[in-house]
Amino acid sequence: MSLTVVGSVAFDALETPFGKRDRVLGGAATHFGLSASFFTKVNAVGVVGGDFGDAEWDVFKRHFINIDDIQVVPDGMTFFWSGRYDYDMNTAHTLDTQLNVFETFQPKLSENSKSAKLLFLANILPMLQKQVREQCPSAEFVAMDTMNFWISSMKEAVIDTIRVCDCIIINDAEARQLTDEPNIHRAARKIMDYGLRALVIKRGEYGATLFTNDGYFAVPAYPLESVFDPTGAGDTFAGGFMGYLASHDKITDDVLRRAMIYGSVMASFNVEKFGTERIDALDYPEINERFRAFKRMTHFDEIPFERATSA
Amino acid sequence: MSLTVVGSVAFDALETPFGKRDRVLGGAATHFGLSASFFTKVNAVGVVGGDFGDAEWDVFKRHFINIDDIQVVPDGMTFFWSGRYDYDMNTAHTLDTQLNVFETFQPKLSENSKSAKLLFLANILPMLQKQVREQCPSAEFVAMDTMNFWISSMKEAVIDTIRVCDCIIINDAEARQLTDEPNIHRAARKIMDYGLRALVIKRGEYGATLFTNDGYFAVPAYPLESVFDPTGAGDTFAGGFMGYLASHDKITDDVLRRAMIYGSVMASFNVEKFGTERIDALDYPEINERFRAFKRMTHFDEIPFERATSA
Repeated sequence: MSLTVVGSVAFDALETPFGKRDRVLGGAATHFGLSASFFTKVNAVGVVGGDFGDAEWDVFKRHFINIDDIQVVPDGMTFFWSGRYDYDMNTAHTLDTQLNVFETFQPKLSENSKSAKLLFLANILPMLQKQVREQCPSAEFVAMDTMNFWISSMKEAVIDTIRVCDCIIINDAEARQLTDEPNIHRAARKIMDYGLRALVIKRGEYGATLFTNDGYFAVPAYPLESVFDPTGAGDTFAGGFMGYLASHDKITDDVLRRAMIYGSVMASFNVEKFGTERIDALDYPEINERFRAFKRMTHFDEIPFERATSA
Repeated sequence: MSLTVVGSVAFDALETPFGKRDRVLGGAATHFGLSASFFTKVNAVGVVGGDFGDAEWDVFKRHFINIDDIQVVPDGMTFFWSGRYDYDMNTAHTLDTQLNVFETFQPKLSENSKSAKLLFLANILPMLQKQVREQCPSAEFVAMDTMNFWISSMKEAVIDTIRVCDCIIINDAEARQLTDEPNIHRAARKIMDYGLRALVIKRGEYGATLFTNDGYFAVPAYPLESVFDPTGAGDTFAGGFMGYLASHDKITDDVLRRAMIYGSVMASFNVEKFGTERIDALDYPEINERFRAFKRMTHFDEIPFERATSA
């Protein structure tokens, strides 16, 4: 099945305890698209400025991502974000945000992008997410991201958008904030009640959990002794998750579970190097080897306890 | 195999958002012993005062826990702890601690307790843990707990004790504090290097992880919409873990993995009611039903990704 992503394409400046980059390719649609491209054909919808060069386009082209719907504003500048991570790599400290051409981004979807069976609405203004969703009536599985900023400033708009989606992929602080519920399982039930088919809660170093009407599935994070650069990990997760779903004709509970693993696999690679460096150079044997590692990390034999009669 | 636990027996006063109890049976050896008693025969080593009554002894007796090594100081009072939990049930706020007879606790192990193949050293003074361990030369698998107070005030003594044990069961903040390592996987490697066979890191609502020389195993927490009273959850986990190990002749990696699940199963029951109420009334079908629930929460089919040639 085809997959369309709508979101930011950006340049990032990054500083972590392990090094520094002044300008690397970033943005939600970029991280998502690269990750998903290993599993399916991706249409990316976004906007860039005249500073977006051949080196950047080549990354998309290498992964056969359809860039027809990435608008170019020749006299504008691409969205720029600068951030720093300390040893606690869970929190990004924003140093600078220049929205540039992204500030007035109006997604324009070609017929090809509109006809995708799967759609991912990366973190943009909730009303814009909803408009895009409504332009894609044939989409069978629509997932969205959001962020604390929208939840605190326009919670109703976020909820309105959730109501027209099938799945939301957010972190646990966002889930709590959205529902005013400290208990994550109660928060999850409230969010599912907006009419979702699936809810993915990302928990950073603790992994991710999937809630569906049928049940609950938990994946640990891949054990990494060094997280090099966490930027884009969430979008890379979403790309692996949605890309894997798109490689199937039918989205069953079993497929959703494996999609959680492939999302976790891709996110675990993403944080090993700066920006898109690691995913850009990834291959299928590496992906499947790490998938098998997740199986080893979580497998146990289902042998019920029977007390020995002599005990 | 036989199992001995050395630790506190106490009365607790508890206050949570869900209710309040002025005096319930508590203590590490109590929670551990009750939990382990579902899997094996347990010898409890501890001390109580003259205020410890028939109702309390009956709880031990009902679960066939050997209480011969619980000393009674008739003119003393039992260890008393009073605590409060707010809606964030992860942190206990201590209101009152009266060590009473526990202050001068000198564990006295009978030949029966000394000859156990498995030994659990609950959270007491590290030097005392080490002395007990040295009294049990035939113990084949010795696990210990500790706490932030000992790590900050006598880290070397804690490490000396770890060096004579096979396993330590601690929470992630303690693992970080013990090693001055923010990354939990690096912290784990440092702790394993003290010569352990297994390291269990408890992560509260995020579950628990097992590190061995062979690998890494992660278990999520059981999804609970209400944590009623978390007191004793860690010791209840340890009791399920060690009790399950004791029900096997040989402790393999597979057995350790299932022990992690049974530990998590028992801890998840413990928090559903005050004190020992829930575990005291538990039965085997409930235990095995929840064990199977852990399987459902974590299982996925190991199907590597193969890109369709037409994609």
